[in-house]
Amino acid sequence: MDTSIDTRQRLLDAAQTLIYASSYHDVGVQKICDHAGVRKGSFYHFFPSKRELALAVLDQTHALMQDTLLNKAFAPDLPPLARIERFFVFLYDFHTQVKNNSGYVLGCPFGNIGCEMSTQDETLRSKVDNILSAAEAPFATALDEAVANGELPAMDTAAAARALFAYTEGIVLYAKTRNDPELIRDLGERALQLLVPADLK
Amino acid sequence: MDTSIDTRQRLLDAAQTLIYASSYHDVGVQKICDHAGVRKGSFYHFFPSKRELALAVLDQTHALMQDTLLNKAFAPDLPPLARIERFFVFLYDFHTQVKNNSGYVLGCPFGNIGCEMSTQDETLRSKVDNILSAAEAPFATALDEAVANGELPAMDTAAAARALFAYTEGIVLYAKTRNDPELIRDLGERALQLLVPADLK
Repeated sequence: MDTSIDTRQRLLDAAQTLIYASSYHDVGVQKICDHAGVRKGSFYHFFPSKRELALAVLDQTHALMQDTLLNKAFAPDLPPLARIERFFVFLYDFHTQVKNNSGYVLGCPFGNIGCEMSTQDETLRSKVDNILSAAEAPFATALDEAVANGELPAMDTAAAARALFAYTEGIVLYAKTRNDPELIRDLGERALQLLVPADLK
Repeated sequence: MDTSIDTRQRLLDAAQTLIYASSYHDVGVQKICDHAGVRKGSFYHFFPSKRELALAVLDQTHALMQDTLLNKAFAPDLPPLARIERFFVFLYDFHTQVKNNSGYVLGCPFGNIGCEMSTQDETLRSKVDNILSAAEAPFATALDEAVANGELPAMDTAAAARALFAYTEGIVLYAKTRNDPELIRDLGERALQLLVPADLK
């Protein structure tokens, strides 16, 4: 039986799929409704605007990435730096799977909207900013542990986590632009180097 | 006197400004014509489509970035690694200036379009991909020199240059999403660490 909750969820899922596959501007309310099998007249019963739907999509995608990627990569069955290395392996696996399914590296669902919309919509920019900041947290926690257990020297772990996640965004953008997930594997292997300066002469 | 060359250039400049400030999809032919002071009927005399105009904009912006940023940063008056450090300082200066002028960190004009359009337009994706690859070249040249003069150990300099430029894209995307150019300065200082692994236990 089709309920209101089903309809709202179908709109959310359709928007998540369509916006991730193309862009925020490319996907109009009509396209979302068509994909969800919902009449356009019903859309505004659930969401006051496409922007409100996009904010809900970002929350849903964030929760999904937390469950399927971050929580698994940063599970404490490995020492902290090995969890970060595992994150980059899982990131590669994820984007390889996405490309196998869709033909494309679709990029970071948060970075994509941040890149497209930050100058056009302050509410979307701020939402993406908060999600990227939150994504730094498991990196920072792992780094704190690595400092505590002597794997790393004392450092500003918040700044180091930010560098790791900025690098993540860069390699995923690069992989999208080259449509080649192998870049994530190749470049991801260098990520831990951002933590500690080498002793150059 | 207004000539055809002026009109074409005005369309190019208008599109460059408008697309960089918002996004490819957000800027239609009418808006470009209004900004350029050109009648819409004339547009298609100069460009068969908005996409063709965007390709010309990417070439023009690439040439501009080459002249104003890359060539200056990588001038041989400094040792090679210091040129890379200077690139990140100039990158910070550029985005600070852009924010002072517009109120926004506008991001990378190539990464923006790559991020927005790679799955929607193969010609635009390929153009951006080629520009990003070309941008790796001065990094690779500097790294080759640094290996030759003993500043760096022997390494795959092409791969290292790619990592540096991917990091560049990441920190610029991050700065756009936070609307804060200071991130480019803070995170840019770590870039050289991507070259050589530190000796961790």
